[in-house]
Order: sequence, then structure tokens, then C-alpha cells
Amino acid sequence: MSALSGIRSIMEDIALAATDTSGDTWLNLSPGNPAAIPQVTDTWRRLYEEAVASGFAEFSGRYGPSRGSDVLVDAIVRYFNARYGWGIGPQNVLVGAGCQMLAFMATTVFTGPGDDGPRRLVLPSVPDYTGYQGLSLDAGGIVGVEPGVEFQDGRFFRYTFDLEAVRAQSSVGMMLLSSPGNPTGRTLLRDDLSGLMEIAEERDIPLVLDHAYGDPFPGVAQGAVDPPLHPNVINCFTFSKAGLPGERLGFAIGPRDAIDAMLSFTANSHLHAPQLIQATAALALNTGAIDTLTTEAIRPYYRDKRRTAEKLLHDLLPDALDWRLHSTDGGMFCWLWIDHAWFSDLVLYEALKRKKVFVVPGRHFFVEPFASPFLAEHATRCVRLSLSPDETVIAEGIARLAEALEEMRGAK
Amino acid sequence: MSALSGIRSIMEDIALAATDTSGDTWLNLSPGNPAAIPQVTDTWRRLYEEAVASGFAEFSGRYGPSRGSDVLVDAIVRYFNARYGWGIGPQNVLVGAGCQMLAFMATTVFTGPGDDGPRRLVLPSVPDYTGYQGLSLDAGGIVGVEPGVEFQDGRFFRYTFDLEAVRAQSSVGMMLLSSPGNPTGRTLLRDDLSGLMEIAEERDIPLVLDHAYGDPFPGVAQGAVDPPLHPNVINCFTFSKAGLPGERLGFAIGPRDAIDAMLSFTANSHLHAPQLIQATAALALNTGAIDTLTTEAIRPYYRDKRRTAEKLLHDLLPDALDWRLHSTDGGMFCWLWIDHAWFSDLVLYEALKRKKVFVVPGRHFFVEPFASPFLAEHATRCVRLSLSPDETVIAEGIARLAEALEEMRGAK
Repeated sequence: MSALSGIRSIMEDIALAATDTSGDTWLNLSPGNPAAIPQVTDTWRRLYEEAVASGFAEFSGRYGPSRGSDVLVDAIVRYFNARYGWGIGPQNVLVGAGCQMLAFMATTVFTGPGDDGPRRLVLPSVPDYTGYQGLSLDAGGIVGVEPGVEFQDGRFFRYTFDLEAVRAQSSVGMMLLSSPGNPTGRTLLRDDLSGLMEIAEERDIPLVLDHAYGDPFPGVAQGAVDPPLHPNVINCFTFSKAGLPGERLGFAIGPRDAIDAMLSFTANSHLHAPQLIQATAALALNTGAIDTLTTEAIRPYYRDKRRTAEKLLHDLLPDALDWRLHSTDGGMFCWLWIDHAWFSDLVLYEALKRKKVFVVPGRHFFVEPFASPFLAEHATRCVRLSLSPDETVIAEGIARLAEALEEMRGAK
Repeated sequence: MSALSGIRSIMEDIALAATDTSGDTWLNLSPGNPAAIPQVTDTWRRLYEEAVASGFAEFSGRYGPSRGSDVLVDAIVRYFNARYGWGIGPQNVLVGAGCQMLAFMATTVFTGPGDDGPRRLVLPSVPDYTGYQGLSLDAGGIVGVEPGVEFQDGRFFRYTFDLEAVRAQSSVGMMLLSSPGNPTGRTLLRDDLSGLMEIAEERDIPLVLDHAYGDPFPGVAQGAVDPPLHPNVINCFTFSKAGLPGERLGFAIGPRDAIDAMLSFTANSHLHAPQLIQATAALALNTGAIDTLTTEAIRPYYRDKRRTAEKLLHDLLPDALDWRLHSTDGGMFCWLWIDHAWFSDLVLYEALKRKKVFVVPGRHFFVEPFASPFLAEHATRCVRLSLSPDETVIAEGIARLAEALEEMRGAK
């Protein structure tokens, strides 16, 4: 917990590159940052100024409720009840200082040493978001379950859930996954979700679903199942991927007892989330601005970028190479699998760094120790590309990636 | 950690009172909230608008460094080096989502189960800030050391540090205290600080000093020693009492190794503090606006309010009552000690609630189990009054307090 994860060392590389005075242009295909879409930035800025104008002293000058500002909690309740036909109330809602903070609080409350021995954090299907690996206060407190692999038409593949392998886990305190997934863009299918909820119910543990890329916003997923209202499910949402990553605002919706435990944790650890941004987010929900951004700006942007990236990969990567792309339901990334013994994600990372390109090595999305020999090998043969940079950056970045792969293959 | 502290139940009472439709006016003398001083609100609002105008997309639309935005970290380094003649760099600074979050992170990193057994959080002199009691993830992980009591002229008294009692503590992971103190308004004397630093050095543990009410801002203390630059001291500062409690922004300055551990914790648990408010705070430091607020607005405001409250207490409380007031070096409260066997802070709390007045019962500022029979008794004979409400509220509140005390004495 107080050591830096592998992905943070990449961030240090990137910070260093920013001070490069050689005049070369670095191409950063690594960011988890959403794209700066002008319509999105403009809308948030307008709402922000409105919140400041209407209640600067009220929001910034007073401590607020740990559950979240009344205005935002009420907006969340109304929005989700209207959208999904739910009957939730404020007791089911907790606003947090970002989705990561909500996941951290859930992990600290529901995993760790328990009365009946250790309670581990289980990721039901790796690869998944690297940030989950820093959540546990206990070394070795996290387990990543091996997925199945389904080969699809052409270059495409898809990880499948191995529910029996999830069910076979012992000492489980909580399950956590992103859907649409980071890095894969895969969304939960109805049967997978039912299976995971069944396991959560049998064990009476929470299943935490991270909808950072999903519905209702930023909504860059197609065919995703609705967030489930279930006594064992804590749904986490964030405004980060809808345009406000720098302001760290998210919220959880779940059963009252779980929300209560996380609420007390909030009060004790950091009192409450900042309030001006909460007032801004409430305006976005109440006015419907967030839906306009989702349908008019963010969703089409990422759909087009994905289409472009897929075409570039097919056009530029060597035909003879055994490369595969995880088929997507949404999300903001491409997840590549280069299935050759001579390939290593870290060697590619260094090779691309020499070509002034940043990508994220695949191994950081898996949990060590690896669950199987296949996974130990597979984890080193993947790489994540972001769809958020400008199209010219993506195009030139993929061209240099193709070059690097040719060179690695030649040197084998 | 996932249970609510006593003070939170008072907050629920207050929230309930806000829905009172009887038409009676409630007098709230409990708040930890700083007063809404117009000059303070206006300045922050102006700086806020400036930050939004200069870099809304840059700050809100991008993830930032876990240490804090460069612009704020640099401002902190410059400000403290200039003010105290230090030679700190960015490696000594960590911006956090409020002072409470910084204290929580330090507590989680430096206390709890260790290789050589439990490491406890020690408060070297209770009473101290109630919020410290929710910081530990381990039940029973906090110890409050009994202070000495010095009787002064007239109605005044002062708690003294019992350094030998602090030194006698076993299994200590970290020491933590506020100076000027909440609730007492007492600041650390040079000898006390030296003694505590010596103990921290001998044991190689951090001494965390919470300057929430102190120098350099909001600066509502007189004769306070400067924050010390010492290999075992982590200094915590906040913008809350300088007018921004709702935005949750603070920072720590300390030795690199301790800051590094807390930095990794930040990255893993919540990525970073929100950025627009960081840009605003940087403007306040760089332009000197924060010093103007401190010297022209906040310090005189609380000095005058304290003088008024002291006079009211002397004028209105029954002469025959054995009441004492902690002498102050600053802070935003009055700490009253009613030394009678018939007195109980909780009985007074209920009596005042019937008179539509809120105060904070003293016991919440002590740590249970109490360190001695004296402390168990003393903790129930104190009450905290806030200096932040309007003068008319303070005057009428103290009048009703005098009334309630007369009635309690009559009913003994």
C-alpha cells in the first residue's frame, strides 16, 4: 500500500519525457485520461461557473455531510430512479472523493483480517484496472482469477468469465471488477452478472461493480446490462471519464448496510468530498446536461476513435504477426495480444520509449502471483493503447508500434 | 473505523433541528466551522474565479500528480522557505484531500500491527480534536495521555504536558496533536515541543503536528512556536480554517521518507487531491492574499470574539459556581470546566437542547478508556463553545447556558 505500483513508474517516465529538450515529439498512447472534447469542457465550465455564482460561500465555506451534499445526493436519487425505475433513497447513496477512493474504502471495510481468518479481494477476471492492485492494506490480499479465452472472427478474441474458478476461491471478502473493463472494453453479459451475484449472495459478500466507463455516463459501451440493484452489489460511478478526472468525484449506490459502513469510514478518514464540484455535478444531473454530453459528444467520439484505431492496426501491423485484438463493447482502450515467444511487453515498452512512444505493458493489469502458467506467459504478451490522444498521435504511434514489432521479430 | 463517533450523533441532532418547524430559533454554539467573514469569502471567490479563468480544462480535465499539482507544491515550497528560512523542496511536500485525510494516512501507515507487535496512536495530551479518535483502523489502537493541570489567576486554568507519562507509553507508532489545540486553544511551548521531538527521535517514530488553527494561516494564535523542521516531525496544514472547509484541502511538510510513504498511499487510495482548488490555493500563497486574510480579517475577528465571550462568561455565569476557562493562546473555541459532582456534560447537553442551544460535551475530546480516575471524572465536567457564530448568538447562547447551570445546580 505504501509502495508504488509498476504503473506509477511509467508515469514517472512520462513526467521525465515532458522535460525532454531534444525537440522530438513524444507520442503518449498510455493515458487513462479521457480526451479533452471541447463540448465536454465547455459544458462543465459553464455548470461550474453557475455553481460558483449560486452558492460559493454556502458550498466552499461550510463543512458538508459525509454522505455528500444534499443537492447532489438528491439529484443522484432522482436521476437513477427515473432512469432505471429504482426506488432508492439517500440511504443507498454515498458520494466519494473519486471512484478509486470508494473502491479503497470498500476494500478496507470488507477485506483484510476477519474473525474467521483472512478476507481477500478477488478480481473475478483479470486483466482488470491496475489501480485495484494498490487497494489492499495487506500484502498478498488480492487474487486475480484466470479468464477463459474465446477466439473470434479475424484478429479478434474475448476473455470469458470462469465462474467455477471464481466459486472455487476461498477466504473471499469482496469481489471487484470494471465493466466496461479497463483495459479490455468488455462489458458483463447478463449470465456472467447473474453468476457473480449468485456467488456474492451465497457467501454474503459485496460484489463491487466499477462503471467508470459504462452507463449511464460516460456511456461508452454498447449492449451493457443495466447497473443491478441487488442486496450484495455496490455500484460505483464517477464523473472522471465524463470529463472531470482532475476533480476526483464519484459515488456509490448500494444496500444500506454496506453504504453505512463506507459512510462512517468517510466521516472518520476525510469528512466528505469537496462541495463546489458536487454542486456542479448536481446541475449536470438535474439539467440533463450529462446525458447530452454522453450521447452527443463522448460516445460518438470513442466509437469513431476505436474504428480508426482498428483500421490502423489492421493496415499497419505485420500480416505474418500473430496479433489479436480484444473485441470491444466500449471503453477507451485497445487491448492487443502479441502471441509469440520472442515477445515481451517490457521489451516492447523500452523499444517504443526509444521511438518516443508510451504504451502500457500488459502485465500491470494482472495480479501476481499469476493464477496459472498460461497467465504468467500471457500477461507478458499484451499491451494497452489509449483511444484518447489525437488521431494523428494514434496513427503515428501505431506506425511506430508496427516498426518496433518488425524489429523485435527480426531480432528474435 | 466503520462506526460513527459520538460527535457525529450531535451533527445528526443539529441536522434534525434544522427541520424544526416550531418557529423557535436554534443557537448553535457547537460548530467547528470557521465563521463566514465577508472579506475572506470575497477573496477566495475572486481567486477561485481567477483559477477557473486561467486553466479550467488544464486542472479539471486531467489527472494530476499524487504529490499535488506542480503549481501548488511549488507555491508551498517557496512560501515556507521564504517565511521560515527553510530549505525544503517538493520531496518534502504532500498535498492531501484535507488535514483529516493526511492524519488518516499517517495513522494507517505508521500505526497498527507491526513486525514487533502493535503500534499505537498516542495523543500526548488530551483533550484533543475528536476527529483523531476515528483515525485508527484498530479498535483500541489509540491512547490519550493525561495532562497536568495548572491553576492560574482568576477563573483560568491550563493543561500542561506530562512528558514523563508520554515517555512511559509502550508500543507507540506515532504521536499526534493539534496546536493551537482544539478544544483548548493552547499552543505548544518550546520546551514541550523539544521534549516531544526528543521522544519521537528516541523511538524513531513520527510526531504529527496539526497546525489547523495555527501559523502561518489562519494564524489565530499568539506566541506560537514556529512549525519545526525536524527529521521526525510531519507538519500538517489546512486551508479549512482560513475559509475553505467545504473544499477539503490540506498539505503535509516533513521528512522525505515519511512523505514518500504517504505519497504512495495517496496514489493507491485516491490518486490525488482535486485540482481547481489547488490552483486557487496556489494563487493565495503566491499573491500573499492568504497573509492579508490572516492578519487583517481572521486573527482580529477571533481575538475580538474571544474577548467578548470571556466577558460574557464572567458577567453571566453564576458567581458561586466553580467554573473555569482554559486560558487561550488562540484557536476558535472556549473550553469550560464546571467542577461540581452534580455536573455532567451530557446532562447539560440535553438541558441546553431543550433550550434550543447546541454545545459539544467535553467527553468526546478524551480517549476511552480514560487514563486515570481523575480523567474519567474530569472528562464529564467540560464543555466546548465555538467562537464562530454571530456575536448575538454567542451572547444569547451563554445566557441560556448560565440559566441551565443555575437549574442544574438547583436540582442537585
